[in-house]
Amino acid sequence: MDTAELTDLGQQLRVDSVRAAAAAGSGHPTSSMSAADLMAVLLAHHLRYDFDRPAHPGNDRLVLSKGHASPLLYAAYKAAGAIGDDELLTFRTLGSRLEGHPTPRRLPWVETATGSLGQGLPVGVGIALAALRLDRSAARVWVLCGDSELAEGSVWEAAEHAGHEHLDNLVAIVDVNRLGQRGPTRHGHDLDAYARRFQAFDWHTVRVDGHDVDAVDRACAEALSTRGQPTAILARTIKGKGVASVQDREGLHGKPLPDAEAAIAELGGIRGLRVRVHEPADARLLHSVPTGRLDLPRWEEGEEVATRDAYGKALAALGTVREDVVALDGEVSDSTRAEYFAKAHPERFFECYIAEQQLVAAAVGMATRGWVPYASTFAAFLTRAHDFVRMASVGGAGINLVGSHAGVAIGQDGPSQMGLEDLAMFRAVHGSTVLYPCDAHQTARLVTAMAGLDGIRYLRTSRGAGPVLYGPDEEFPVGGSKVLRSSGRDRVTVVAAGVTVHEALRAADALAGEGIAVRVVDLYSVKPVDRAVLRRAAEETGCLLTVEDHHEEGGLGDAVLDAFTDGRPVPRLVRLAVRTMPGSASPREQLHAAGIDADAIAVSARLLVEHAVVP
Amino acid sequence: MDTAELTDLGQQLRVDSVRAAAAAGSGHPTSSMSAADLMAVLLAHHLRYDFDRPAHPGNDRLVLSKGHASPLLYAAYKAAGAIGDDELLTFRTLGSRLEGHPTPRRLPWVETATGSLGQGLPVGVGIALAALRLDRSAARVWVLCGDSELAEGSVWEAAEHAGHEHLDNLVAIVDVNRLGQRGPTRHGHDLDAYARRFQAFDWHTVRVDGHDVDAVDRACAEALSTRGQPTAILARTIKGKGVASVQDREGLHGKPLPDAEAAIAELGGIRGLRVRVHEPADARLLHSVPTGRLDLPRWEEGEEVATRDAYGKALAALGTVREDVVALDGEVSDSTRAEYFAKAHPERFFECYIAEQQLVAAAVGMATRGWVPYASTFAAFLTRAHDFVRMASVGGAGINLVGSHAGVAIGQDGPSQMGLEDLAMFRAVHGSTVLYPCDAHQTARLVTAMAGLDGIRYLRTSRGAGPVLYGPDEEFPVGGSKVLRSSGRDRVTVVAAGVTVHEALRAADALAGEGIAVRVVDLYSVKPVDRAVLRRAAEETGCLLTVEDHHEEGGLGDAVLDAFTDGRPVPRLVRLAVRTMPGSASPREQLHAAGIDADAIAVSARLLVEHAVVP
Repeated sequence: MDTAELTDLGQQLRVDSVRAAAAAGSGHPTSSMSAADLMAVLLAHHLRYDFDRPAHPGNDRLVLSKGHASPLLYAAYKAAGAIGDDELLTFRTLGSRLEGHPTPRRLPWVETATGSLGQGLPVGVGIALAALRLDRSAARVWVLCGDSELAEGSVWEAAEHAGHEHLDNLVAIVDVNRLGQRGPTRHGHDLDAYARRFQAFDWHTVRVDGHDVDAVDRACAEALSTRGQPTAILARTIKGKGVASVQDREGLHGKPLPDAEAAIAELGGIRGLRVRVHEPADARLLHSVPTGRLDLPRWEEGEEVATRDAYGKALAALGTVREDVVALDGEVSDSTRAEYFAKAHPERFFECYIAEQQLVAAAVGMATRGWVPYASTFAAFLTRAHDFVRMASVGGAGINLVGSHAGVAIGQDGPSQMGLEDLAMFRAVHGSTVLYPCDAHQTARLVTAMAGLDGIRYLRTSRGAGPVLYGPDEEFPVGGSKVLRSSGRDRVTVVAAGVTVHEALRAADALAGEGIAVRVVDLYSVKPVDRAVLRRAAEETGCLLTVEDHHEEGGLGDAVLDAFTDGRPVPRLVRLAVRTMPGSASPREQLHAAGIDADAIAVSARLLVEHAVVP
Repeated sequence: MDTAELTDLGQQLRVDSVRAAAAAGSGHPTSSMSAADLMAVLLAHHLRYDFDRPAHPGNDRLVLSKGHASPLLYAAYKAAGAIGDDELLTFRTLGSRLEGHPTPRRLPWVETATGSLGQGLPVGVGIALAALRLDRSAARVWVLCGDSELAEGSVWEAAEHAGHEHLDNLVAIVDVNRLGQRGPTRHGHDLDAYARRFQAFDWHTVRVDGHDVDAVDRACAEALSTRGQPTAILARTIKGKGVASVQDREGLHGKPLPDAEAAIAELGGIRGLRVRVHEPADARLLHSVPTGRLDLPRWEEGEEVATRDAYGKALAALGTVREDVVALDGEVSDSTRAEYFAKAHPERFFECYIAEQQLVAAAVGMATRGWVPYASTFAAFLTRAHDFVRMASVGGAGINLVGSHAGVAIGQDGPSQMGLEDLAMFRAVHGSTVLYPCDAHQTARLVTAMAGLDGIRYLRTSRGAGPVLYGPDEEFPVGGSKVLRSSGRDRVTVVAAGVTVHEALRAADALAGEGIAVRVVDLYSVKPVDRAVLRRAAEETGCLLTVEDHHEEGGLGDAVLDAFTDGRPVPRLVRLAVRTMPGSASPREQLHAAGIDADAIAVSARLLVEHAVVP
């Protein structure tokens, strides 16, 4: 396209953005209008993409990090012929694919869900890493960012990662329109301020007038010819560009234009330009299917093994038969034991340093290209990435997250290192799976099972060693449980997981000596829970005692309720959990102080059996 | 102190770090040894602090961002005479004040809990902001950072904020020892790499040999004489410095020295140096006591008001009588309605831009100086700061967090903007309070009540308007509830909060028309819950139907269980919550699609009353 045609395309994208928002009665047309010329040039001249084959490995990837500018994205889809004008005008209505913020759950051309700012670039880094180091594809990753979102630290985690990894297949185009939601940004139109920051993180930068289509065209070409560095195109733009009554004005963020009809006329009216997007690059298949027999590690019954060790070894074994499995870690692979995988499969291991948001975002990005990522750090530090996990769920990303050092059982390091909120966090994420093994063989099986699930899969591992309870061939279906002690005379059921399973067994043995038969359920699948076993336990024993190394809210104690919230009779319940703020102490002292050790279980079980209220 | 004495003090801090870790059998001596000379110079020459009066407003503030180097901090306390040698050797034992990572819960000289990396600098920014803009104190803020933690995006949110606010009372001393936990950092000893980054964010930087005490001394002096900019002192150091067998070596992170006795000898043996720390600066009292009568806004019964509006107006009113109340917002004050406070009290309003980690950290920092912060953004985006909230709880910080745009009821914007996990997140934090009002007067009262509570206080507000239900003089104690419909013939209790209260009332009215009496409880205090009212409802109506605009895990449905987990009989339960991933639609369509509107409540209530299982 020549200058005039590109300019015209930009105007069409503006008009269609205005029309979509007007039809919806909501949305962000002014944020779309600032970036319209950037999108026009990208779509017409630089993006290589087959909209009929969104899974094509040679497709470039386009990430709209400023997800609120969705009208612009949908207008571009229309210009590329991917959607029709009728669909464009369904924007933000019930059942439409065109949501307020784009998501791959609905649209095959969307790489990742955006709308929480500062996430597109970190995910783009993950996609670019996969393209460069795993797919060895010539595909490029284009991320359209807002200027406001550069205040998010996650953007600088991404900048650091991309610069360090020399991701020259990654281009960030920053729409510097100087206005945030409630007013001016910190740096306004000072492109140099942004350039200094990106350069400091070893990026190539190009400053450009974002409404000069030829200059933008040259900037994109410069980005593509830059080797060894990612490029940031810093584009000076005007919010609401093209409509005098709204452009460069505060107070209009996230609102349809006051007079859409007049605006459309001012923008030159509705057009029907159709862009012929470049073909994707040649590309090989992403990766092969599983090969060979999975040879999981084996341990002796009773051997003392930490589940984090079992995780690392099982993942390394899985990686041997599944070439699509990759591992990422937040600079603690010696603790999470991801180091076993790193040593066995260094080409598929990604060190993300202490940057948990980038860690999870990289996993999301790799998953978009069909890889099966396992990202690990301390359970406590996964809270750092909660918003990324949430958005991964919004987008339907399939990722495995592994949190080690669960609970007070870690001992001396104290509360800052203890995962005590992680079960609550992961349970509350839509469509998640939450697994919490108590022994090595169970861990190994669950690590394998995770790879085949959808959505967010979370595995919680423990620092300390515990005895191997199960044989190497025992199966652990997701959604299942194991009844470890059971008789026809059981008077209470203790439901435990992870470290508390061992405490529960000890308590059950002690109580058996007193003539109190106790059922013990190992609820390794915290979400979904084994409703059948819990309901049978409730019917047969009348009461459930849950015990968990986690705060009392949102964890195991709450999870068992899932079996009883359909109006059926509910058993009597007692919950043992971490209710005080721990300090430093040995693991055993910690379990005792928190009231979740065998003694505490036995005391509560006795009271329950006596039908007393448990304090 | 002269060069020799400073050097000697550095060696003493090393020896005491080694001894503390040896006594504990765990800890991070090598990470302490790299920073020992930095700490020696700071303590002996630059810190102004009265250890007998930690609350003195003129005290400088020292934040150990690399919290795992706690042995060094405790060794410094000993050198300053704040603790004795006996206590030093209690490090990491049960009941000791000297935890694995320092926390203000136990030690009065610790400003904020650290141990999750990348948090000390953001909190330091909050303290420095308070000192400069609120206290108008000459106190300085010293933050000792590790180099590994500079990978955290939160550090760059802090760098951006501090540079932009010209915080020349803030000094970051970075202990660049080149080794992280599992191996080398990205930049090793390349001080220039770090300098470029800090300079890009408008910091003054000084590069220094961190073991040359005179050079460190000069660097600190340069930092103190720098005006208009914060300073980063980038110190090249050696991990494990001073003990040949461990220094600059991998694989020794977080472990006591293999041979402590030999190490102590090599370091010159145990010393008894005592540092006379400089007196604090002169300083005025932090702020005055409340003045005047609180004049909360009032509305007409039935008037349609959004609780976010009530929040903003009530906070502005509270700020008028309480000079210690400050507000912070993440660049969405027009949405959260913090703008009412910003307009009324601009000198106590802090714009944090789109950087939620810094937003919460700034609140934590201000709270350390006695201010009462209210920090607001969308509920969904507070997930970004989960780890900061967690650590604030570990440290016992008293902060108010306000999340707007709760649930599917926001409508068209779609799931990326919906707070659907926030109740779970905040409930799971130790010692938190979780409030979720349904009307304007309730909101106003709760905003006021929050100021007087301890720990993390969370208020959830709604985007859309709802009718005012309560009078302006109604009281809403934290831990209470309101029974809105009740009779002697109630056959089911609907427990709701926020937007679902209005749906519950509608359903109750419809069911009353069918002859089914329904009790309705407004559970505005989600944590703690009103056990008495819930237990009475259970006894009198036999079953509870909870309905919430939140995912089904960890929210209201789980919260009511807190009244029934002591072994007493549990009522029959049905839970209505958001179980599917929403798209874009109108607020009413969203509530309907999620199955949490009046119709859904009525359907479930009928089934419950008929003793049927509710699908």
